[in-house]
Amino acid sequence: MAKQLDKITPRDEDFSQWYTDTVINAKLVEYGPVKGTIIFRPYGYAIWENIQNYLDKKFKAIGVQNVYFPLLIPESLFNKEKEHIDGFSPEIATVTQIGDKKLPEKLFIRPTSEVLMADFFQKEVKSYRDLPLVYNQWCNVMRWEKTTRPFLRTSEFLWQEGHTVHNSPSEAKNLTLQILDIYTKFAQEILLLPVVAGRKTEKEKFAGAQETYTIESLMHDGQALQCGTSHFFGDNFSKVYDIKFQNKDGKLEHAYSTSWGVSTRLIGAIIMTHSDDSGLVLPSQISPIQVSIIQIKKTTEITKVTNKIVDSISDLRINVDNSDKTFGFKISDAEIKGVPIRIEIGPRDLENGQVTISRRDTREKNQIKINDVEKTVHEMLKEYDQNLYKIALENRMKRTSTASTIEEYQKQLELNTGFVLVPFCGRIECETEVKQKTSTNSRCIPFDIEQVEGKCFNCGQESKLRVYFGRAY
Amino acid sequence: MAKQLDKITPRDEDFSQWYTDTVINAKLVEYGPVKGTIIFRPYGYAIWENIQNYLDKKFKAIGVQNVYFPLLIPESLFNKEKEHIDGFSPEIATVTQIGDKKLPEKLFIRPTSEVLMADFFQKEVKSYRDLPLVYNQWCNVMRWEKTTRPFLRTSEFLWQEGHTVHNSPSEAKNLTLQILDIYTKFAQEILLLPVVAGRKTEKEKFAGAQETYTIESLMHDGQALQCGTSHFFGDNFSKVYDIKFQNKDGKLEHAYSTSWGVSTRLIGAIIMTHSDDSGLVLPSQISPIQVSIIQIKKTTEITKVTNKIVDSISDLRINVDNSDKTFGFKISDAEIKGVPIRIEIGPRDLENGQVTISRRDTREKNQIKINDVEKTVHEMLKEYDQNLYKIALENRMKRTSTASTIEEYQKQLELNTGFVLVPFCGRIECETEVKQKTSTNSRCIPFDIEQVEGKCFNCGQESKLRVYFGRAY
Repeated sequence: MAKQLDKITPRDEDFSQWYTDTVINAKLVEYGPVKGTIIFRPYGYAIWENIQNYLDKKFKAIGVQNVYFPLLIPESLFNKEKEHIDGFSPEIATVTQIGDKKLPEKLFIRPTSEVLMADFFQKEVKSYRDLPLVYNQWCNVMRWEKTTRPFLRTSEFLWQEGHTVHNSPSEAKNLTLQILDIYTKFAQEILLLPVVAGRKTEKEKFAGAQETYTIESLMHDGQALQCGTSHFFGDNFSKVYDIKFQNKDGKLEHAYSTSWGVSTRLIGAIIMTHSDDSGLVLPSQISPIQVSIIQIKKTTEITKVTNKIVDSISDLRINVDNSDKTFGFKISDAEIKGVPIRIEIGPRDLENGQVTISRRDTREKNQIKINDVEKTVHEMLKEYDQNLYKIALENRMKRTSTASTIEEYQKQLELNTGFVLVPFCGRIECETEVKQKTSTNSRCIPFDIEQVEGKCFNCGQESKLRVYFGRAY
Repeated sequence: MAKQLDKITPRDEDFSQWYTDTVINAKLVEYGPVKGTIIFRPYGYAIWENIQNYLDKKFKAIGVQNVYFPLLIPESLFNKEKEHIDGFSPEIATVTQIGDKKLPEKLFIRPTSEVLMADFFQKEVKSYRDLPLVYNQWCNVMRWEKTTRPFLRTSEFLWQEGHTVHNSPSEAKNLTLQILDIYTKFAQEILLLPVVAGRKTEKEKFAGAQETYTIESLMHDGQALQCGTSHFFGDNFSKVYDIKFQNKDGKLEHAYSTSWGVSTRLIGAIIMTHSDDSGLVLPSQISPIQVSIIQIKKTTEITKVTNKIVDSISDLRINVDNSDKTFGFKISDAEIKGVPIRIEIGPRDLENGQVTISRRDTREKNQIKINDVEKTVHEMLKEYDQNLYKIALENRMKRTSTASTIEEYQKQLELNTGFVLVPFCGRIECETEVKQKTSTNSRCIPFDIEQVEGKCFNCGQESKLRVYFGRAY
């Protein structure tokens, strides 16, 4: 649209409004006609495609196979797993008719595909030789949420859901952790999110899972965001869906399963971690545009130099903005879109064989020789990414604290919202009580913190866990 | 599954049963729990991924941008375009409740996203400077079909749907044809389908389109299959949805739009064109496995040679079958999966520094020197692809005929089902009559046939068109 970019509310004035202003003004999304749905515009969808490309390669490298299962689940099949339904049923979009004709059985739009996969595995698996089956699908799912926000919580969202079955619990457990490791590295190295990896408490683990592993990220405002989960079901699901195999001893045994997923919510995590009052700040490896080249005038010389530069960094995603929009518009468009590096080419610089280069994060501007562009750009992208991670990590550190009583915990949350490490008994009832008192819950039992004994911060009972609690999206 | 491969019904005995046997036994799909839905198994989905990868690159090269629009369409929005609804409404899956709670308005699962895109374009487009918008999405859509068959006609299917708006009719028309050209080359060069490209008649064009272009393929049994369509809407859709832009003269003008798509149906086309009584025969460029290496024994020497061969053709998709299944099982598994080239490595051949290589199409077997594998495999893949195309083209030629009266046409269909070229008046009523008489309809007005005057084969009125009619899936 030719209209001027709208103003973005300052981040520290109203974080929530800043977020909405940013996703709309950067043209990532538009609201859809049905409540709680979003339209992914090209720039928003391109980020998702970059996420998909990276993860899909990593999955395939460890033997994951992509599949596609149907959108609709018959009510009778869905109802087999009671625990599962209880978690989802109020949120489920239900097809009851085709045209004007009523269906004999209700069909649910998948909120996740566990039951469909389980039903398939039940028919497919006969012998230990058929295992493992290591499946994944990239698809849309639907959960009707009361309050929605672009990327973070939408009625329909895009994700990948992995579902696997194995002939031993250890193999299934290993796969669960192998996937969590892929998620962790992806979040840290590509999305530049200093996530905390760990295990969910009994209360927070996925319905039906024996163990849920998670990566938790801290947003700029100190609220946590769950970025990806990997579930080890043991044989829980197999018992409900009767997935059995003949083991090496010729005996029937229930299979061991896992599921794991990340969603378009990751885009929300990136924005709320790195972006600022001028718009998006995107990690270079998933930014749809890595370098934006802006011509100050249109001359033969400038075109020639532009082409030379484009050739020299053709391994990167480059946008040459030669529209007839104003120079000022082009600058703020590149800023709001979070393009890591901007190169401006104007007649005065060219006289000295130079161009102007600037970084989106520090907004530092420098003149550099045209011949140095290739080297400088590549170095700068590395430094840029390192700096994004550093800032996010500093925020997380600054906002991480400890508490040994519920009063201390509540005080910490007021003073400095973030991760609060507490000794915790692990009981569901105790965590329910914490939630009632504080409207917060546990984030994870972190891998990298020593699990020492103590007294639960809420009930005072003996505690063997050190757990991060906090406010979350 | 460890069970033996099931028998495939001979193709010329019962084409329809042969097709079903093939897709099930080759493990492309499994039936889903909801009528008319299919589960894409890894091998089936991998073919779709290869199709996506190729087309997505071609689309992006001409400036297409990927987006994602929501799954659900509110009834009120859908009802704006009367012509459109009439075509779809009996087939539409309708969400009426969330959990147990009735929705205030019915929501339709998209049978296509024209109306959602149009609604977006209406808000987005202001000036000729905003145009063109050239969008595409890869997604699932749903049309409740009475009779279904894997890939060819399923309640839910996967496709890409392109939707574009332009500030001039000529630009929109050019884009329509540019896309048809991508489809044609893809079908001919990658899927090895000798498609006929052309325009649809008034009766067969898409609801609301000014012109529909199509690629039509002829299956082994002589029935046609529509493989891809590209629609030029002129300003029809823009008028209904009020998509206007300020043109260069400052006046408001309705925009010009297009839409185009191909679906998982293409997989059906490939199978029904190339495959045979032993299972799939897949075009090499979309085959999930291009070379299958089968070890006759497991020895150090055989492993060493296998690794050497894998290294030398690492640009290809290779499967080394070192499972503990029998040699015979491995051979028929590679055959049924349509793997273009099979290499068998056994001790006797190795003594002479040789391996055995065979092609899936001709089933010719040869001993070749290990050092020649790289060269031979690459040459063989080319010849293999050429041969698949040649056989399919011969079938089409053999099954293409002409007729000048309805009686001749009916006789041709009985004798030799295929494309029948007839002089046709082009009137909707006349084509409706042909359909009533013969249960067939027009396939396309081919680009590469001279359009000469004559008398309509059905009504005898003056005809300016030469049109292919025939039986179709």
